[in-house]
Amino acid sequence: MMISRAVTLTRERIVAYAGHFDPQPQHLDEAAAVSTGFGELVASGWQTVSLSLRLAEEVCPALAGGRYRIDSVKWQRPVRPGDTLLVEVEVLQAAPFRFQIATRHAEGETVQTMIGTTQT
Amino acid sequence: MMISRAVTLTRERIVAYAGHFDPQPQHLDEAAAVSTGFGELVASGWQTVSLSLRLAEEVCPALAGGRYRIDSVKWQRPVRPGDTLLVEVEVLQAAPFRFQIATRHAEGETVQTMIGTTQT
Repeated sequence: MMISRAVTLTRERIVAYAGHFDPQPQHLDEAAAVSTGFGELVASGWQTVSLSLRLAEEVCPALAGGRYRIDSVKWQRPVRPGDTLLVEVEVLQAAPFRFQIATRHAEGETVQTMIGTTQT
Repeated sequence: MMISRAVTLTRERIVAYAGHFDPQPQHLDEAAAVSTGFGELVASGWQTVSLSLRLAEEVCPALAGGRYRIDSVKWQRPVRPGDTLLVEVEVLQAAPFRFQIATRHAEGETVQTMIGTTQT
């Protein structure tokens, strides 16, 4: 399990994101949000997605560079201004991969090289 | 690329390892080592292997727990007392794996769950 740093979604960030990418009343303004299904100002789900992927890429080397697809997204709870979020990345199903372990002098010279394969 | 911490192999560690696991003259005593092919005291290659695997497991989550096999080992240079070593772990061939990204409040409540697949 890889755990990211925590980030606080301020009202400013929520409204700015919505203004650019998801301009709906529940993401833009407290007064307008009252008459929506949420009844209050909440973050766009897409803002939570993009923040979560950024945090996940920071802690999971295999995701860095964006070589993955997302198969499903589920929103369980609204995110409100001031909420502090972090992500936990978990490998659900690993496949074997080959790796190399090079042992070097701190000055850089290679003293040993091993090739291996993970088992799942 | 994952890079481990550096560890110095002292004379004491080299001789102690050899005494237990690889008691040959080139690993045990400077004077006895002179008449070996090495001509000097050097660490057992198996000591370099076991140190390297320990350091690799520390920095590569996929290796933690020892679920891998080593397919080949190559010793390029002798390791001498006082040498400071580190390992570099590199994925040579990755396979797709499935992962889950759970976004949580810092207090623990889950606000979003995504399932994804890496692409190689």
